[in-house]
Amino acid sequence: MDVTIDEIETLSERALREHGAGPEQAASVAHAVARAEAMGNIICGLYYLESYCVQLASGRVDGTVEPLVTRPRPGAVTVDACFGFAQPAFARALPTAVEAARQNGIASLAVAHSHTCTSLGYFTEQIAGHGLIGIGATNASAIVSGPGGKRPVLGTNPIAFTIPGPDGPRMHADFSTAAVALGKITMAKAAGETIPLGWAVDREGNPTTDPEAALAGSLVGAAGYKGWALGLLVEVLAAGLTGSVNSVDVKALKLAEGPPHDLGQFYILIDPTAHADSLSERFARLADAVAEDPGVRIPGSRREPMTRVSVAPELWARVRELAGT
Amino acid sequence: MDVTIDEIETLSERALREHGAGPEQAASVAHAVARAEAMGNIICGLYYLESYCVQLASGRVDGTVEPLVTRPRPGAVTVDACFGFAQPAFARALPTAVEAARQNGIASLAVAHSHTCTSLGYFTEQIAGHGLIGIGATNASAIVSGPGGKRPVLGTNPIAFTIPGPDGPRMHADFSTAAVALGKITMAKAAGETIPLGWAVDREGNPTTDPEAALAGSLVGAAGYKGWALGLLVEVLAAGLTGSVNSVDVKALKLAEGPPHDLGQFYILIDPTAHADSLSERFARLADAVAEDPGVRIPGSRREPMTRVSVAPELWARVRELAGT
Repeated sequence: MDVTIDEIETLSERALREHGAGPEQAASVAHAVARAEAMGNIICGLYYLESYCVQLASGRVDGTVEPLVTRPRPGAVTVDACFGFAQPAFARALPTAVEAARQNGIASLAVAHSHTCTSLGYFTEQIAGHGLIGIGATNASAIVSGPGGKRPVLGTNPIAFTIPGPDGPRMHADFSTAAVALGKITMAKAAGETIPLGWAVDREGNPTTDPEAALAGSLVGAAGYKGWALGLLVEVLAAGLTGSVNSVDVKALKLAEGPPHDLGQFYILIDPTAHADSLSERFARLADAVAEDPGVRIPGSRREPMTRVSVAPELWARVRELAGT
Repeated sequence: MDVTIDEIETLSERALREHGAGPEQAASVAHAVARAEAMGNIICGLYYLESYCVQLASGRVDGTVEPLVTRPRPGAVTVDACFGFAQPAFARALPTAVEAARQNGIASLAVAHSHTCTSLGYFTEQIAGHGLIGIGATNASAIVSGPGGKRPVLGTNPIAFTIPGPDGPRMHADFSTAAVALGKITMAKAAGETIPLGWAVDREGNPTTDPEAALAGSLVGAAGYKGWALGLLVEVLAAGLTGSVNSVDVKALKLAEGPPHDLGQFYILIDPTAHADSLSERFARLADAVAEDPGVRIPGSRREPMTRVSVAPELWARVRELAGT
């Protein structure tokens, strides 16, 4: 099925409304779904819509609650998502956080007690849209064990960052601190494929190529102990500093029923001109040096959103069904 | 040779003074050397002293210059190391940065135009000593190429972070965004050993196990594109935001002669109580979950400094020589 991003957004919004989301909330989440599809990020696009709808219906996510923004320190902005969606909570807090970063040079934005934010980079991109460097971290349901272990204690705990530029981001990256994102394992399982050694271990802690054994076992950190350490830092920022729950206490994100996700996101907003006015010059020098090495690229530069994408017919049929059309 | 950490500090200070460092600067750098040895970090300990001394003598580092601290925004503190050592510059700025973080919830400390800081974690530990989360990044002379490439454009560009606790750090990590620290390659070369595949590529971009070919070629990012992206972020923070030079423009750090290193360090200081007061509780839950998995540990917890260490006799003889004793 060849569909436009506008159709995706319209139908997603209708589906979310149909399952109990308020107008502002539905529009905010539908925009994130459409943006993910436009950027080719299928894991965080329509693939997630059914779970949003099912959990709106079951009450696992609150679709109408008003997020609460506070600014406990001049450089610290908190938004309590009150077990609602991450996107409208972030939207409500962003103007205050941007102002805080401009005034102070740097600011932190803590999103507390939210539903999964899916694409973390969606938020750091918005920060960069205001000319600020955005660095983000979030936790998720536990699926990652420590080096040499077998007990899942961390989520895939991604980090994302976007460096602003005059014509869109100079650089943008968004990746799991685990060896891979969980979606890569579930998609391999759905496709009946094996996974490479080094992504996961089984329930006994032995390396495995079977996605099912991986899901019953645990993923490993990217680059071993480095990804493990980074995942722990993310946990401290996303759960420890926001007051949201630890990954180990979050039920699988797509389970229809259960307690709210209660996840946290932590963003750092940096005014690139606060200390020196050299970012443009230094980045140009770096980009020139990188350009001398054929085939090497700076991640996330020259990303163009698509206006039309191809969607699997069964998925599109399900979306239409969810939207009641 | 079995020597005490106190002897290491005393002799290092004397050696630095002997080669032209001022009293404050020599004491500050000698303390960092001693601390590195006490923590078993031999790459950043006495192994570096000769280079400090030689470069003091050649003028590649200024041993007497006064660092300049400014606070351009309420949450942004800059210290210009003026081509001197990183340690005394950081020490001069730290009290202002700590105050800024407490007032604002978060603060940034940019160290500009400094000599190599060697152990980055040495500085984030000091931030954590004030009850703040410390996250640090620094660049270095270029030795890392992008995925699929062969031109070194980034330093090993480490990141470090320390999470404070009531009785010392709850967690501490300090690692290269490259597959390994440069010291691992130079030490393998010195020992006549090969290196594992996956650390480096030769001058033509082919994977190599020969440390000499690696040094003539380039290292690769940790976990491929993830380490590459993180290394680029470090470059933006350490060079782009501080106004120090790009890794690609820094001559090899231990060359006796040449222009000053002119490196940057960028630190983020976070008051863990700014948004919520839940760090202790969440961290305890995390640590308990980790403890149920035998053999898995949280990095940098329960690190005890040594008071005596073993030093190679030739190295100790050289240190005594540098100190003129």
